[in-house]
Amino acid sequence: MTTPDHGIRVAVSTVIVALRRHPETGELALAMPLVRRVTEPFEGSWALPGGWVGVDEGLEESAATRLFETTRVQPRYLEQLYAFGDVDRSPDRVVSIVYWALVRGDETPGVPDDWNVRWFFAEHLPRLAFDHDRIVDYALWRLRNKVGYSRIAQAFLGDRFTLAELRSVHEAILGRRLDPANFRRQVAQSDAIVATDEVSSGGRHRPARLYRSNPLLAFADNGPLGSDRPPAPPTGT
Amino acid sequence: MTTPDHGIRVAVSTVIVALRRHPETGELALAMPLVRRVTEPFEGSWALPGGWVGVDEGLEESAATRLFETTRVQPRYLEQLYAFGDVDRSPDRVVSIVYWALVRGDETPGVPDDWNVRWFFAEHLPRLAFDHDRIVDYALWRLRNKVGYSRIAQAFLGDRFTLAELRSVHEAILGRRLDPANFRRQVAQSDAIVATDEVSSGGRHRPARLYRSNPLLAFADNGPLGSDRPPAPPTGT
Repeated sequence: MTTPDHGIRVAVSTVIVALRRHPETGELALAMPLVRRVTEPFEGSWALPGGWVGVDEGLEESAATRLFETTRVQPRYLEQLYAFGDVDRSPDRVVSIVYWALVRGDETPGVPDDWNVRWFFAEHLPRLAFDHDRIVDYALWRLRNKVGYSRIAQAFLGDRFTLAELRSVHEAILGRRLDPANFRRQVAQSDAIVATDEVSSGGRHRPARLYRSNPLLAFADNGPLGSDRPPAPPTGT
Repeated sequence: MTTPDHGIRVAVSTVIVALRRHPETGELALAMPLVRRVTEPFEGSWALPGGWVGVDEGLEESAATRLFETTRVQPRYLEQLYAFGDVDRSPDRVVSIVYWALVRGDETPGVPDDWNVRWFFAEHLPRLAFDHDRIVDYALWRLRNKVGYSRIAQAFLGDRFTLAELRSVHEAILGRRLDPANFRRQVAQSDAIVATDEVSSGGRHRPARLYRSNPLLAFADNGPLGSDRPPAPPTGT
């Protein structure tokens, strides 16, 4: 892409949020891949994966392509989060269209964890390049905000899940413990999930009832924008 | 602003939504100001107010400035809606950062209604320039979607309002009648508004209890983005 004189350049960045088991606590925690910058400005700093928008690329296409090029992550969907365009956010004038995706563990098999790309837990992020700290803060705030009124937590789970698994996702997003009895009561009052006839195979726990998403409830989607996007994500904008 | 060769230009557009009384039905209805294009492409067509982002302007500053220049509307706040960047949305490559605002009648005193700027009811929009039909569809969809889980309807009202006034705002947004008894019950169950000791002065109706927003409920805001923005809008992102 040609760099315009005195113009504004358009970039994309993506916040990928996954749940990973913390090696020390054993608990699920929010984690994201970051990319080490190899050029100035902020050479050597960690940044969100992204890059310039090609003149022939749509915004979401560009975000997905830059994400794959830098991290090999291919989420089932990306959702536009916000456009960041403060005048002083970069030495040159750059407007960044930021996307985000919530991914399950099985969607990140190819992600390297090496010198240039590394997964960080959200609670232990380094100081990031540009205004990426602020972008991540905003993404995590949105995630915590949305978990209260949407089915967004189910994005991290498979087709079938136990109430304990759903609660552990809520706990990881909110960063605090939830009372199991209260959680069960609240979920029972909502129509977000329905019980199946199946039970979990247990492992070290005793078998527990498996639940699934309520198919009668449409996943909240992007409405009129949905038609040229991937299948409606389980997020609830 | 210099136009880059083969680059991407950044524009802002704003969807202003107000409630105006329809002259034929006498009912409140969603309305918005549109601007007639005086150059190609789409010369003579109606479009959302907007223009190019100056290299020294922040995005919201730019949206507010272009909006004032074209329509004289100065909303108390603007909220970023979405960035539209399809490759074919304009003959040149243009990424438009779209803002929106819900305004009360008393915020639009200076709006001209002439050959170049005109207010249209949302139900009777002409075919708009570029992809602005799609942008308006998305804004109205978001508005209808948000009215269910947020206090967004109160953005159209003053400090004190009757239940009938609040219901008429909901009806205008949703485009359908709501049962008064059901509406009263639902509002009573929520903690979004609280009764005052005051009653309306009536006019041709008998005096009715006045309500106000619940001050204990923080207006949903933009979280970490809020600090450098105007006072938190009564929307509920």
